[in-house]
Amino acid sequence: MPEKFQPPRGTRDFLPEEMIIRQKILNKIKSVFESFGFQPLETPAIESWEVLAAKGAGGPEILEETYNFEDKGGRRVGLKYDLTIPLSRVMASNPSLPLPFKRYQIEKVWRYGDITKNRYREFWQADIDTVGTENMLADAEIVACTIVVFTSLGFKNFIVKLNNRKILSALVKSVGVEEEKIMDVFRAIDKLGKIGVENVEKELIDRGILRNTAKKILEFIKIKGKPEVVLKKAEKFVKDIKEGKEGVEELRQLISYLRKMGVEPKFKVDLSLARGLDYYTGPVFEVLVADVVESLAGGGRYDKMIGLFLGRNIPATGISLGIERIIEVMKDRGMIKPQKSMVKVFVVNVNDRVVDDSLKIVQMLRKNGMLVDFDLKGRTLTRQLEYVDSMKIPYALIVGEKELKRKVVKLRDMERRTESEVKISELVKTLKKL
Amino acid sequence: MPEKFQPPRGTRDFLPEEMIIRQKILNKIKSVFESFGFQPLETPAIESWEVLAAKGAGGPEILEETYNFEDKGGRRVGLKYDLTIPLSRVMASNPSLPLPFKRYQIEKVWRYGDITKNRYREFWQADIDTVGTENMLADAEIVACTIVVFTSLGFKNFIVKLNNRKILSALVKSVGVEEEKIMDVFRAIDKLGKIGVENVEKELIDRGILRNTAKKILEFIKIKGKPEVVLKKAEKFVKDIKEGKEGVEELRQLISYLRKMGVEPKFKVDLSLARGLDYYTGPVFEVLVADVVESLAGGGRYDKMIGLFLGRNIPATGISLGIERIIEVMKDRGMIKPQKSMVKVFVVNVNDRVVDDSLKIVQMLRKNGMLVDFDLKGRTLTRQLEYVDSMKIPYALIVGEKELKRKVVKLRDMERRTESEVKISELVKTLKKL
Repeated sequence: MPEKFQPPRGTRDFLPEEMIIRQKILNKIKSVFESFGFQPLETPAIESWEVLAAKGAGGPEILEETYNFEDKGGRRVGLKYDLTIPLSRVMASNPSLPLPFKRYQIEKVWRYGDITKNRYREFWQADIDTVGTENMLADAEIVACTIVVFTSLGFKNFIVKLNNRKILSALVKSVGVEEEKIMDVFRAIDKLGKIGVENVEKELIDRGILRNTAKKILEFIKIKGKPEVVLKKAEKFVKDIKEGKEGVEELRQLISYLRKMGVEPKFKVDLSLARGLDYYTGPVFEVLVADVVESLAGGGRYDKMIGLFLGRNIPATGISLGIERIIEVMKDRGMIKPQKSMVKVFVVNVNDRVVDDSLKIVQMLRKNGMLVDFDLKGRTLTRQLEYVDSMKIPYALIVGEKELKRKVVKLRDMERRTESEVKISELVKTLKKL
Repeated sequence: MPEKFQPPRGTRDFLPEEMIIRQKILNKIKSVFESFGFQPLETPAIESWEVLAAKGAGGPEILEETYNFEDKGGRRVGLKYDLTIPLSRVMASNPSLPLPFKRYQIEKVWRYGDITKNRYREFWQADIDTVGTENMLADAEIVACTIVVFTSLGFKNFIVKLNNRKILSALVKSVGVEEEKIMDVFRAIDKLGKIGVENVEKELIDRGILRNTAKKILEFIKIKGKPEVVLKKAEKFVKDIKEGKEGVEELRQLISYLRKMGVEPKFKVDLSLARGLDYYTGPVFEVLVADVVESLAGGGRYDKMIGLFLGRNIPATGISLGIERIIEVMKDRGMIKPQKSMVKVFVVNVNDRVVDDSLKIVQMLRKNGMLVDFDLKGRTLTRQLEYVDSMKIPYALIVGEKELKRKVVKLRDMERRTESEVKISELVKTLKKL
């Protein structure tokens, strides 16, 4: 096949077998989001460069990967790289939306990055965000909803890591890191789980942090234990800095709400969690599954980003689920059964003379909401049954001349290889029971 | 609001109130598509310029409107302008897909055209296509499925117009139109319903057709009556041209299948129907509703387009539903009830001291699949109820201290303004009945 008829590099066609899986997963996620009171929102694929590149938005790393271009009118625009920036813009252009505004958004985003294994230039994200309240109840709800999503998808060994940017800010200030190096430090310590203590230390020093300071930072972020224990130890470190105490208090509140919501065993406080983006201002969270280094979801509170667009701050918190990685892990672990076709019943013609009667049966079943297909190619009986088999369609209805005279058809269970006669008048009832 | 924080020109944000409507409509369409055995497919937003501009694909008019640009790697690419070209490319790059391949695709497409009322640069289409059979059963199924979609959306006065490009080809050949003017003639006569006989005649003459020839063409395309009558009269005109007879025969077969499928009263043969695109080779169809000039859906058979990509022809037929126009007409006619929120029950706190108990109730209801929201801002009882009212959420559950002691809550029907006490242990059962 000539390369030019493949989808563009880094993008994919989703054939039915893949789409059936994706739709099942996205529908589950959507229904959990909706049960938590999040409302649907969609924004354009294209955003103006001014929005995408707003100071304090995605930051330089993402911007470098932005799929941007000049449109026909000579305007610089780009395909959106996430769902948080568009939400912030929507809040700015609809200042009369009732708050809190709780929305979910499940859409494609684009990044023009290196194409290595499992990195795509077009991929799906599923986000929930609550805009308009500083209350930790909102953060707790985001985390609880995420936990219910992962549980409902069938994940068992997963954990939500919690931290607070205020605690980290207090830490770096207390050990004397200069303002302009703070984000560098955050990005380095965020890698603790992936690259280990020694490498984080090396990276900190490489970024111009004194060895002694780096040691202090590492001592702090390595603290382990139950949430209360970690928070107590953290509190001692940052006790002289208002921001630090606030951060600890927020996490305590958040955890208390999570317990009341009944999602206790799925979270822990990890003081090395920083998240790479510039815009977080409070709690940050991340979902990890056993034996997978990279997170499957991540988010946090960003009380100042909407202000960049609107001119006055509106607090907000949210999380983004990485759909591609979730699906990949679910496939690897056999958590999703592949399905070639959604069709439940295939109506098989014994020969050309029964086509008209078959058509009537097909339409009767479809009218009753059943997923039904039939032969469009004039294939022989054997060929039709081979097709039904190859597509793993569970039932075949065989329409024959003799049987039609007696007003019956044969119903074949393709998996069990059993066959029975059913009256046409009772077909709907019989099939609905299967 | 500065213009830069609006979505780019010709694109829209879909706020929840709009999204709730759109999701309902798209879900209905999707479930009809699935009942007819069509399987889901998705393709990238971006296609290579070679694919979009393939000779015999969308044609010069669409190409002029293509949202194209140079990507960062210096490749000319564009956002897809329809769902048929991507399907054709998918067929070419997956030559082992079992045929017939029946797929549906509901996605955004982009065209960089003039922005006038109801023309957008980013909009939704919903397509079904059957690839791999010349059998008129496939065309009949496409038309029948479309009719069921419109019926299920609540449309009553709509009609599917049918014609066949082979009949039109035979006509123009029989009256002596030169090969290179055929598409011009098709585009002119296609406007009959919109601009009337005189203007079509004028346009034909303007495009270099002799007055006498134009008269003959108009005489033909004006033929009216029941399908059989129109076809009989058309047959006489084109009887000496094999193509023409084939076209008439195909329509007869198509109509006969439609009758067997039980969708009789919704279609008619309209010999002026041509459809603007170059690639149709057989039956063409279009859905029109009373008092709306432009069609809400259109399609036809294109047996040669996939061959452009694959190198050998694979027959195909399909239709595209114009989601934006369908939604617009449904709104204009009051066929959709606006809905501000999907939330069914809002749990109201009488004061701060009941928050923990409220949270437990909220989570219990959500666990049971209900769409539930609660206060995240510490608002007063009155403010919470005002909010529930303004969002038209149907039920409020009022959690009070006294009531909690008796293990009950108050259930308020917001529309009827009635209130009753419900035991917390019976809440799920009671709410599920509402």
